[in-house]
Amino acid sequence: MPHGYIGKILRVDLSSGRVTTEEFPENFYRQYLGGEGFTGYFLLKEVPPRVDPLGPDNKLIFAAGPLTGVPVGGCGRHSVGAKSPLTGAFGEAEAGGYWGAELKMAGFDAVIVEGKAEKPVYIFIRDGGAEIRDAAHLWGMRTLECQNTIREELGDPLIKVAQIGPAGEKLVRFACVINDLDAAAGRTGMGAVMGSKKLKAVACRGRQRVSLADPEQVKEIGTWVRDNTPIILKGMHDFGTSRLVPALNSAGGLPTRNFQLGSIDGAEQISGQTMKDTILTRRRACFACAVQCKREVKVDEPYLVDPRYGGPEYETLAALGSDCGITDLKALAKANELANAYGLDTISCGAAIAFAMECFENGLVTAKDTGGVELRFGNAQAMLQMVEEIALRRGFGDVLAEGVARAAQQIGSGAEAFALHIKGQELPMHEPRWKQGMGVGYAISPTGADHCHNIHDIAYTEMTPMLEVMKAVGILEPMPLDDLSAGKVRLLKYYSEFIHLLNCTVCCYFVMSLGLMGFDRLTQLVRAVTGWDTTFFELLKVGERVVNLARVFNLREGFGAEDDSMPSRFFSPHPSGPLKVALDPEAFQKAKEAYYDMMGWPGGVPSPGKLGELGIEWALPLLAQK
Amino acid sequence: MPHGYIGKILRVDLSSGRVTTEEFPENFYRQYLGGEGFTGYFLLKEVPPRVDPLGPDNKLIFAAGPLTGVPVGGCGRHSVGAKSPLTGAFGEAEAGGYWGAELKMAGFDAVIVEGKAEKPVYIFIRDGGAEIRDAAHLWGMRTLECQNTIREELGDPLIKVAQIGPAGEKLVRFACVINDLDAAAGRTGMGAVMGSKKLKAVACRGRQRVSLADPEQVKEIGTWVRDNTPIILKGMHDFGTSRLVPALNSAGGLPTRNFQLGSIDGAEQISGQTMKDTILTRRRACFACAVQCKREVKVDEPYLVDPRYGGPEYETLAALGSDCGITDLKALAKANELANAYGLDTISCGAAIAFAMECFENGLVTAKDTGGVELRFGNAQAMLQMVEEIALRRGFGDVLAEGVARAAQQIGSGAEAFALHIKGQELPMHEPRWKQGMGVGYAISPTGADHCHNIHDIAYTEMTPMLEVMKAVGILEPMPLDDLSAGKVRLLKYYSEFIHLLNCTVCCYFVMSLGLMGFDRLTQLVRAVTGWDTTFFELLKVGERVVNLARVFNLREGFGAEDDSMPSRFFSPHPSGPLKVALDPEAFQKAKEAYYDMMGWPGGVPSPGKLGELGIEWALPLLAQK
Repeated sequence: MPHGYIGKILRVDLSSGRVTTEEFPENFYRQYLGGEGFTGYFLLKEVPPRVDPLGPDNKLIFAAGPLTGVPVGGCGRHSVGAKSPLTGAFGEAEAGGYWGAELKMAGFDAVIVEGKAEKPVYIFIRDGGAEIRDAAHLWGMRTLECQNTIREELGDPLIKVAQIGPAGEKLVRFACVINDLDAAAGRTGMGAVMGSKKLKAVACRGRQRVSLADPEQVKEIGTWVRDNTPIILKGMHDFGTSRLVPALNSAGGLPTRNFQLGSIDGAEQISGQTMKDTILTRRRACFACAVQCKREVKVDEPYLVDPRYGGPEYETLAALGSDCGITDLKALAKANELANAYGLDTISCGAAIAFAMECFENGLVTAKDTGGVELRFGNAQAMLQMVEEIALRRGFGDVLAEGVARAAQQIGSGAEAFALHIKGQELPMHEPRWKQGMGVGYAISPTGADHCHNIHDIAYTEMTPMLEVMKAVGILEPMPLDDLSAGKVRLLKYYSEFIHLLNCTVCCYFVMSLGLMGFDRLTQLVRAVTGWDTTFFELLKVGERVVNLARVFNLREGFGAEDDSMPSRFFSPHPSGPLKVALDPEAFQKAKEAYYDMMGWPGGVPSPGKLGELGIEWALPLLAQK
Repeated sequence: MPHGYIGKILRVDLSSGRVTTEEFPENFYRQYLGGEGFTGYFLLKEVPPRVDPLGPDNKLIFAAGPLTGVPVGGCGRHSVGAKSPLTGAFGEAEAGGYWGAELKMAGFDAVIVEGKAEKPVYIFIRDGGAEIRDAAHLWGMRTLECQNTIREELGDPLIKVAQIGPAGEKLVRFACVINDLDAAAGRTGMGAVMGSKKLKAVACRGRQRVSLADPEQVKEIGTWVRDNTPIILKGMHDFGTSRLVPALNSAGGLPTRNFQLGSIDGAEQISGQTMKDTILTRRRACFACAVQCKREVKVDEPYLVDPRYGGPEYETLAALGSDCGITDLKALAKANELANAYGLDTISCGAAIAFAMECFENGLVTAKDTGGVELRFGNAQAMLQMVEEIALRRGFGDVLAEGVARAAQQIGSGAEAFALHIKGQELPMHEPRWKQGMGVGYAISPTGADHCHNIHDIAYTEMTPMLEVMKAVGILEPMPLDDLSAGKVRLLKYYSEFIHLLNCTVCCYFVMSLGLMGFDRLTQLVRAVTGWDTTFFELLKVGERVVNLARVFNLREGFGAEDDSMPSRFFSPHPSGPLKVALDPEAFQKAKEAYYDMMGWPGGVPSPGKLGELGIEWALPLLAQK
């Protein structure tokens, strides 16, 4: 019996121009849900081993989840996945905004893009159907211009557009997919995959509400979320994700100068509080959300910043700011606009520039290499110039557009020591010497260093109410940040599986986790939407299933336990500043091994029994292909 | 913050006569809940390795759970645990009736009995206090007489009594603990442990209602259970647990003649339907339950059967009936009365007699050994005589009172081939050639062959609504009975963990599982009683935790993977009858290994990571003691 939450899956073969729709049974949805779960499934089922991530054999999966488009705060997200051109491993990122809900309202749960177009194209999805359209005139456009042109030529200002900017066209390895101009499926270079397929955009318009098994119950939960999360997340509403900059800076947890330090003079200038007092024009929300943690800023001088591109979030302010030694909020607002206009992941972009700055200051890169740019920490002008050069692969930007791992190889002479990455992906702006559980999470994440498939172990100290939430899965005691005992590893296992689950449903971490939605209420929401008599046990097992699918994928692609690594920098403390501790190599290794053991991954490889327990025995033969 | 569901734990040292009460924190209850969880915890924490199960160093744990005594059907159970004198391994059994609820209403969650009294004693618990009383005058009494005497001397006809009969006093290795005259904590010889401590009874009276975190929600669930389970379990209400005898017989799944066959002529004579039409006088219920699956029977000739001892259930009818080649319902009603009066586990008792009959028919035991008794299949008179002889350890009964494993060693000459047991415990009346998942469950159960720490895989065929319940943990497809693939092993893992969970809460399988209570409603009930913001994930992890504690205990006591065995008989099909299949040795071995793998038990031993994930790292050093 099909339920209302089940839509169709659109398959677009850009090589042949064929557009088809497929339907999958209910049990498929129960096992994989959507989002990252679909990416895990389709990458393993349909993408042969060792394909070129930028070649026609890679597939790009846009996927909503069963909760996407449901009128409850936090349910406005979708996921984009493919083999990553940045890491060569499992690639997946999620974005907020309105595009995912629009896809669902058009009757689709996912779009599988395969092959490669000969000339630039875009896909237009509308109320159950789809077509491939010429995009020659859009190629080269920044995202605002492209969105405007598509809306105009299709005669509908309500069309939602997920697209690449020039960075994706140029195959910048950390190009992102931007939707609604200010929401990014940022990490793992999904924009480059899109560019490699000559797919400029996926435009979407749907006018069918997602039907619900129990609308009254959904309404009740939606009302709870609307009435409570803006209060629980008041700091997020008032000041956005950068509200914690001053606290991070005081603790030594604000990545500074390519993670050489954990605090910076003038940090308060890039805080959410300062932003509110100066350049903030409006708060923005994703679909159905009352928290409004997204920002809109306007700057007139010395840079003109278009408010339609939103405003910088914490990751952007730290990666392009403190990590580059910069505390100039207006310059960061401009950098954010550029990143959204060109379609760049601000984390990898900022980290690449910070890496280059450290190389420059150590003489490994000179003004000769940079075309005269003094690429020093604190030079906001140089940072802005480099963002554009990376996006367009101009000058030294072409080197950095490859990501720090490849750039370090090109630069040579010891640059590798400054190339902070795991599996080829640059670290997000969470200091692993401080949040040590998250550090281990960086190492074992299938996507490389990533905070969106991880834990935020600051939430499990005595300080926060998240501890109460985790009690619901048996994590009963708080844990210090620098604790890497079995208890912390267990927290990492459960919580990261929960995050992978949210990437399948597809939901917002802030609302569902920090917003204290609670696991029971989330379960009730899935029940009310789908009509399944499910439990949080079944749901969390979906998260675990996806982690295992991604692990099998990575093993097949040649990754192993030795790639679950940590740059050596993080085993030494900051030379100065408030944070005195670093990761301990032995404790780190022990925690990694405890994680494998808890996962049922002897030597880092999922056991046949574990795959059997998760109902994915079909993935076992793929391990033999590694 | 203590909640109303938390009571005290009573500790009675019979050696010193010291009676103390202890309190444990909330997190202890969340991790172990009660019942079997307490036994797992206290056996490992307090009982040294390799103690004599019948010596003073063994401890006997009577434990209720957080749901015991809550006014909801299925919540009237308690658990009794100790190192088993039958198996030398983890021993635990549960019983219905009213005793557990009375213990809770007296303010206690558990009673830990340690040491050994010099002379017979009993414990009287009343409203928060307890005393040890002389039981010299009770020693030797049958259970009815003993209960009457205690009530009379304490002047309260509402006192509930859990006790041993003469069989427990005589240390029959499968003596049980009887409460309310017709409810038995039957398996693993807990009555012998009680006897070894010279503890005749634990009498209990409490007048304090269990306080509830959310009484309205409990009431709502209680109403649902009251209104629905008697309808869902109508067959159980009408005909009791033996309702399925005709169906089992047709399928070849009714153990007959010491499991040589799976059906018997005249099976309908021992069915619940026939019982209702002939000797049934009344249905009985456990505390708060509207299903009333328990029976009361009256027989006047040729045996006088006292209705106060209840009536025979399925296991009794098959073990002492078909498995002994007997279909005489009145004789079985008498055997049931004797077992309840003497305090014998009817399963092991029937299995021991069936074993002796096969030995007799093959000339390994003769009339000379049996004192003239013609111990042949179908001889009801001989069966009845043997029940008494076992209980009193008279004549050949003294040999059988040791259980079939030890009896076979005494008899020698190949008797071992007829001794059907796992880890020393006789098989319950579920044919492992037919319900093959349950067969694997027999092998891996910490208590030896046992249907109360197992799955009933007949419930997961296309036939039954249990499949819908299991969907809630991701078991989405039905499975044939003779399937031993990874999917079945996964079902075994999840479902047996669920059963272990029910043994901790402590609840009835029939109501909570077959009664389609559903995992979500069960979770809501635990939330409403305790006030915990829990999930079914946390709860099922308690079940997994207990399985692991029991495994560690058994490893410490010298058991290993080689003891997770299956008698060779079950690898050959019945020589005739409707069931054509047998267990396949290779498939069985593969399923066992898949189970270890799914459990995180390489080589059958819990990995450090698995213990860490379950928050029981403290048990790891105990593995080194093996």
